[in-house]
Parts: sequence; structure tokens; C-alpha cells
Amino acid sequence: MTQPPFDKALPGHFYAVGVGPGAPDLVTLRAARLVQTADVIVAPRSSLAGDSLALAAVRDLLTTQEVIEKTYPMERDNGKTEAFWGEVAGLCADRCARGQSVVQITIGDPLIYSTSSYLLGQLAGQMEAGLIHIVPGISAFQAASSRFGDALTLQEDRLMLMPATDMAEVAAALERCETLVLYKVGPRLPALVELLGARGLLDRARLACRAEQGEGEIYLKDLTTPPAREVGYMSTVIIHLGRKGWA
Amino acid sequence: MTQPPFDKALPGHFYAVGVGPGAPDLVTLRAARLVQTADVIVAPRSSLAGDSLALAAVRDLLTTQEVIEKTYPMERDNGKTEAFWGEVAGLCADRCARGQSVVQITIGDPLIYSTSSYLLGQLAGQMEAGLIHIVPGISAFQAASSRFGDALTLQEDRLMLMPATDMAEVAAALERCETLVLYKVGPRLPALVELLGARGLLDRARLACRAEQGEGEIYLKDLTTPPAREVGYMSTVIIHLGRKGWA
Repeated sequence: MTQPPFDKALPGHFYAVGVGPGAPDLVTLRAARLVQTADVIVAPRSSLAGDSLALAAVRDLLTTQEVIEKTYPMERDNGKTEAFWGEVAGLCADRCARGQSVVQITIGDPLIYSTSSYLLGQLAGQMEAGLIHIVPGISAFQAASSRFGDALTLQEDRLMLMPATDMAEVAAALERCETLVLYKVGPRLPALVELLGARGLLDRARLACRAEQGEGEIYLKDLTTPPAREVGYMSTVIIHLGRKGWA
Repeated sequence: MTQPPFDKALPGHFYAVGVGPGAPDLVTLRAARLVQTADVIVAPRSSLAGDSLALAAVRDLLTTQEVIEKTYPMERDNGKTEAFWGEVAGLCADRCARGQSVVQITIGDPLIYSTSSYLLGQLAGQMEAGLIHIVPGISAFQAASSRFGDALTLQEDRLMLMPATDMAEVAAALERCETLVLYKVGPRLPALVELLGARGLLDRARLACRAEQGEGEIYLKDLTTPPAREVGYMSTVIIHLGRKGWA
């Protein structure tokens, strides 16, 4: 569990680096130094996105690094997902074996709904553990809540973070925490609005789209008037259900 | 919901700034710039702690800023807590009214079990909203999981974050998520070990104490052999219960 210093990317080492929600100044100093000194930057890009959000966040830090953009399939298919990341892992391991330092950049945090987890899973069989490192990053829910200003958790509060995929699961979660954070809202917003409306919770639900990504940011203080147009995949809903407080 | 640029702390503005888990290089660029350019740094310190952890994380960024350390009562008493933070809020509002820029630094993220939430609550009545800003920071569970390397959430996984105060609540949470993160473990570790042992979950529970704080860091990959000595308040247990996966 010992770690090397993080002041520069070391030859033969791989780093999964969270660059935060998108704003270049929400990158940590550690992430910035690793990106600045890496030989190779691997930047995954969703097949649905025009640009790599992670790359945009660190563009000012790029000089002579080799940048490899990899477009991953935005499909719920484990076979394709594993095949894709297996190939990327092979590339990373090969570059490290040749003595290069490799940084995979990822939007948000590498361990929270991140492509890094797939890559790390595939790398585990190809590189020794001591050469693989992870740098945390600010996740979207933190960026969103910072704009709204309400505590996510205080005292005995429970926070639940989950995707907004299954409304039955969301309904259950509403009973089990003080703050519910939903990721990947996108096309499920109408169903979510219906559920929250039936529970009288529309005024407790805040919506952020592309928080801290500079362009196309939306912040809605509640969902009593839901957005007219469709919100994207990068949308977060934060529902403040109450406070548990000290007993 | 518009924000001013964050390249420097502005006169008359207040910033609640998360400085991350403790390592100086896990501070974001935004936090670093605000700390560097603030007139006044307010650094809360627990009455049980020798030093302000937040101050240690940004010590290299301090030059001529006035640093005000405030020792808060480490007691579960809402009256005392509100009185203390009301006084700190008065001080911050007064300095801002006089045209100074004020940064309150806090370990971790300002909205996750943080003193900032108390201060922000009290400030709301004393300053206009447009002058109050929040900067997110890396929280302890992100620092801890980065060292262990397992995904916190992937695909349909649910993550629950809560304090380890009440073992009946912890037991319920074990059934309701794929990853359970417990904060404030400290003296409840023996009770937690008993609960997890009875459920056969000791080998799925990782423990981090003072993650990324430089001194006294402990990382245990499982709890089958619990730590011999008492762990502190700044301890995080991450229990990996399974994966939900795509349907």
C-alpha cells in the first residue's frame, strides 16, 4: 500500500487520474502534475460525445505528451465493454513495459461510475500492482451541490448515490436516506418527475446538467417546473429528503 | 446561480473551500488560488485535535494572509454548535462587510459531514447569497478507495455513505446498497467488527485511517484481523457487498 511520490509521472507506472467535473481549475495539484509530466495521456471518449470532457479539463496542461484518444462504445454490453478496455489495457501495459509513464484521464472520480474501473480491472492481470496508481477527483454530485449550497450530509444523515435507471429502486431509496443523488438522469427525467410529483417531493429535488463544464450548464433549484427540453446523460438530481440529526 | 471567476478571492466575498483529505497536492487549483489570494483564512479546529488538518493541507500556500483559528466544541450539542458557528459567521460577515475576502478552509468537502455546513447556515442570514461561494474538495472516502483500488460504483451500483453510529442502521444499510461507506468509525469499530463477522463480511470490509494525511495513515485490506489499537475518529470503512450490473 505504499505509494511513490506524485510530483511527477514515473517511467513504467500507470496512473488512473480523476480530473474532476470539467472545469480546469477543479483539477487537483496531484492530477495536474501527473498530466503535465506523463509521456502518454490516454483519454477515453464516449461514442456519443463530440469531445473528450476529460481532455478539455486538462488541455492547458498539455505540451509534448502523446495523447491517445479512445472512443468507447456507449452500450450496455459487457462483452463489448470488456473487449474494448482489454485492448486499451494492453496498450497501456505495453507503453509502461517500454519505460513510458501513462496517465489515463477520466472525468470525475476514477472509482465512481467511471471508465477507469474497467481499465483497472483489465490492467490488474497485465501489470504488477505496485506500478498502478489512482488519483481521486471531484465527482459531479460534489460540483452540483457546491452550486446549490445545501449540505449533502450532516450529523447522522445518510447519502445514497445511484443511477436513475429503475424508478422502483429510486422509490425505495427515497425511504432510506436523507439525501438521494441520482446520476445518469437524462431520458428518465419525465419518469422521475412523475415519481417525485406523486410523493410531493418536486420542491426538494435540484437538477444540475453539465455542472462545471462551462458550456450548456443548467442549474434548477427544484423540479416544480421541469426543463422543457431533454436533459443529457451528464445530469445529476439531488433530492433533500430531510435531516436525521443527532439522537 | 452565476458565479464570479475563481482565479482570486474577491473583496467582500466569502468562500467555503474544501481542501481535500489532507495531502497538500490533493487540493484543487481553485482552492489553492483562493487560499493564496484571500485576505483572511478561517481555519476551524476540533477541540480534540492538536492541529487544524485543513491548515496543514494548505500551509505551503500561506504568506501574508491573516489566519484565524477557531476551536469548535467536539460535542453533540446543537445549542453549543449553533452558538459557536453563529459567532464565526458574525466574524466572517464583518470582515466581508469591511471589504476583505474571507476563505474558510475545511478538510474534505464542505458539504459532506463538514463544519462548513454549520457556518453556511448561519451566514445565510448575514450576507447576501451572491457573495457566498462553495468550492468542493476530495472527501476521505475517495482518498481511501483510491488507495485500495476497487470501484465504489459501476453500472447500476448503489453507494451509501453514513456514519457508523448506530449498528442497527448499519445492518439495514448492508441490505440496501452494493458499497457501504462508513465515516466516524473510531470507537464503534469493535461493534462494527462484531456485526460484520456475524454476516460473514469481514473480508469485504476495508479500513483506512487518516488517509492521505501523511502521518499515522493505516490501510487495512480487510477486517479479518482488526487493528489492535483503537482507531481514531478520522477512520473510514468501505464494505464491498457486490455488484448490481446492467440488467
